[in-house]
Amino acid sequence: MGKHLTKRDDDYSKWYNELVVKADLAENSAVRGCMVIKPYGFAIWEKMQAELDRKFKETGHENAYFPLFVPKSLFEAEEKNAEGFAKECAVVTHYRLQNDPENQGKLRVDPEAKLEEELVVRPTSEAIIWNTYKGWIQSYRDLPLLINQWANVVRWEMRTRLFLRTAEFLWQEGHTAHATKNEAITEAKQMQDVYAEFAEKFMAMPVIKGVKSDSERFAGAEETYTIEALMQDGKALQAGTSHFLGQNFAEAFDVKYTSKEGKQEYVWATSWGVSTRLIGGLIMTHSDDSGLVLPPKLAPIQVVIVPIYKNDEQLNAISEKVNEIVKDLRRKDVSVKFDNRDTFRPGAKFAEYELKGVPIRIAIGARDLENGTLEIARRDTFEKKSINQSDALSYIENLLNEIQENLYNKAVNYRKENTTKVDDFKEFKKAIKKGGFVSAHWDGTEETEDRIKEYTKATIRCIPNDAIEEEGICVLTGKPSSKRVLFAKAY
Amino acid sequence: MGKHLTKRDDDYSKWYNELVVKADLAENSAVRGCMVIKPYGFAIWEKMQAELDRKFKETGHENAYFPLFVPKSLFEAEEKNAEGFAKECAVVTHYRLQNDPENQGKLRVDPEAKLEEELVVRPTSEAIIWNTYKGWIQSYRDLPLLINQWANVVRWEMRTRLFLRTAEFLWQEGHTAHATKNEAITEAKQMQDVYAEFAEKFMAMPVIKGVKSDSERFAGAEETYTIEALMQDGKALQAGTSHFLGQNFAEAFDVKYTSKEGKQEYVWATSWGVSTRLIGGLIMTHSDDSGLVLPPKLAPIQVVIVPIYKNDEQLNAISEKVNEIVKDLRRKDVSVKFDNRDTFRPGAKFAEYELKGVPIRIAIGARDLENGTLEIARRDTFEKKSINQSDALSYIENLLNEIQENLYNKAVNYRKENTTKVDDFKEFKKAIKKGGFVSAHWDGTEETEDRIKEYTKATIRCIPNDAIEEEGICVLTGKPSSKRVLFAKAY
Repeated sequence: MGKHLTKRDDDYSKWYNELVVKADLAENSAVRGCMVIKPYGFAIWEKMQAELDRKFKETGHENAYFPLFVPKSLFEAEEKNAEGFAKECAVVTHYRLQNDPENQGKLRVDPEAKLEEELVVRPTSEAIIWNTYKGWIQSYRDLPLLINQWANVVRWEMRTRLFLRTAEFLWQEGHTAHATKNEAITEAKQMQDVYAEFAEKFMAMPVIKGVKSDSERFAGAEETYTIEALMQDGKALQAGTSHFLGQNFAEAFDVKYTSKEGKQEYVWATSWGVSTRLIGGLIMTHSDDSGLVLPPKLAPIQVVIVPIYKNDEQLNAISEKVNEIVKDLRRKDVSVKFDNRDTFRPGAKFAEYELKGVPIRIAIGARDLENGTLEIARRDTFEKKSINQSDALSYIENLLNEIQENLYNKAVNYRKENTTKVDDFKEFKKAIKKGGFVSAHWDGTEETEDRIKEYTKATIRCIPNDAIEEEGICVLTGKPSSKRVLFAKAY
Repeated sequence: MGKHLTKRDDDYSKWYNELVVKADLAENSAVRGCMVIKPYGFAIWEKMQAELDRKFKETGHENAYFPLFVPKSLFEAEEKNAEGFAKECAVVTHYRLQNDPENQGKLRVDPEAKLEEELVVRPTSEAIIWNTYKGWIQSYRDLPLLINQWANVVRWEMRTRLFLRTAEFLWQEGHTAHATKNEAITEAKQMQDVYAEFAEKFMAMPVIKGVKSDSERFAGAEETYTIEALMQDGKALQAGTSHFLGQNFAEAFDVKYTSKEGKQEYVWATSWGVSTRLIGGLIMTHSDDSGLVLPPKLAPIQVVIVPIYKNDEQLNAISEKVNEIVKDLRRKDVSVKFDNRDTFRPGAKFAEYELKGVPIRIAIGARDLENGTLEIARRDTFEKKSINQSDALSYIENLLNEIQENLYNKAVNYRKENTTKVDDFKEFKKAIKKGGFVSAHWDGTEETEDRIKEYTKATIRCIPNDAIEEEGICVLTGKPSSKRVLFAKAY
């Protein structure tokens, strides 16, 4: 199975595409640019959803559901947002099919069933949601309004890649309304923190928190807070964004509230989202030439147990022992699978779980039964150890934590090694060519950013929240700059 | 708030529409026929999802996700299924908008961005899924394939009603593949049982299990297993269906497997689904002229506590006591809300929670603090009781169970009283006019079914699984019949 996986050094992009399919995460569908998320991939998404949803609720948000379609007249109301998405909108124009008179057994669009107004399949839901909020918000008592939605959205991308960029993807989008500017900014920043904590603690994927430059900002936002991760091939991945939308949508949809003082004021807004793209980030942070590597906190199967046996008698004896261990582990909320299929040999099973990134593999044979031992192998380091059965439970619990930490630390080190401070444009070009984050001074203009992109394909990933105030000069123009920003080529 | 709810006897349909909006469950959106599910309504759906998802996984199913769009050529492959849904399909024909040259600031569909092949927004996913399964199934080892998807679907209905019939709705759709006919039928029946158990144990909504007649069967199915509930206005609601699809989709998409004996065989299929329509059924099973009534197992808030106080000092003393109770209840997994808003008076709060169907309301005032008591009111019977604080925990736990049971029993009794056995057509018409289920003999022909529908608007809801074999004659034609079927007017 995993044997024929392309090596990362040979062709990273090919390695990624093969891995996604071979590890049973997702595949391309019959619909251009749309993917099928297979059960194993979807189980990872469910784990992500559960944890994010918990965090959203903990911070006071409620879930709701808004329509898939946005009437064109609403879609275009906030002009910048509409302009940003217009070129990638799937549009519903008809509501009926009919038998094709020229083609027996085939259907065609019924020309009589043309919609009076076209419907855009949501690429994001600000428009339909703010049109709804108009009816929900009258007074300061109705604020803040803290709502999240789990949904599918469609953006007609020309070049697509499984998880990273697909025409349809799954995501969550938070849409909040506030009485004051400050409160909205605080909310947007809070959600950036929630995302960063999730990325680091659950995905074991270190991220840089920062704000986007003008040209990389969300269409319709005043400020975009982002978390940026560094992939193994030296390219950056925007992993989640949280937008302070100012009063743009409130003005476009005329959403005002009566303040405590009895004045009519426009409402302040945020929106924030992460998507199935995170699974792409997860893969490209940890996986290796043998396949997927999953952090225990997001692994659908944390421990797999493979019996090594010559006959049914041995299998029965092993199974008896294994069933005890399985019960104990489940009681500790460890998700464990006992793979007793007799249609595959142990070697094939080992390869399969390696490919699928199961963090811990236990092998147990007749000899182990005699000795009261187990062989425990970690997916992250391939280290194997023989352990007393009586110690297994605490050993496994510790090991899961250790693997989670090790993956995070490895990724932090990788990022450290691949972040370069540069002070002139020659160095800059060299560093970008090598890959990784490049920390450099920039004069703050869109023009310079554009020219740098043109010369090097690198963009400003963010102006880090923790950037130090220092005197410097722009790597390209030599104009004065007060802080370094982070450049990289990006997904 | 609840004061102005129309009475059920005056106009049931108006009562329903008002209730859905006033209890904050859902509302109509700017998109024809599409609803916004508000946080309180969505919280009920989340509780339904959690329990159903648990049951699906318990019975061996995994979740996955398939594309929103179905290319027309795939959609039309299974002809009966396509024919059944063609008239209500939203169709995507273009993938880009552009600035409208004749209308500054407006957008129009870019005529250059016409799709070569139109995409149908899924009304159901058999076609796209079976086209995918073709790649997943080669041998008997790949079977059974037991997959479920939580998704939105679109059916362009002309007359829509919140939850009951909307152009877009949320649902789950299971799609399974099996090696043998028997196994597929067993699966379809199992899921009917899963749905029935959920309806009765969680929704407290009794259902009749049965099979559909030819004319009411799912387009493309060989057999449709259904659960049918009776609403308070005497109309039936189809609450969930499970279909045995034979080899129809396997043939349409050429999905074959190699059997143990090395032969190529078409795969057998089932599909099954329940949707946000269940929330409509929940409302029309239990609610009353004061508003929503929720069974405790699906209530987002099971217990609400309202403080009765004259000044801050009293509120503080009450809050201290309440916080203890809240902690105790949460430890027992009871979801409880302490409503200490000072912007509303107790009377307004009482009305609000009555309208929203919170099963148990606790009021606590200064006098209660002195006496060590609480006033506990049940939503289902409006009964109030003063309880010692020390007994509160076990009293509430019991009461939640009692309310759950009481609601179920009431609904069973209502159905019993509104199910009529009739043996001639005059009685039949009278019984249908009165409302409820009518149990009658039928000659088994579609023609008779059509004529009965024409005369009375009643349809065959199902041929009950537990129908007794008995000699009888069809109420309309007098032709021989071997079992009674269930007629009703239906949603």
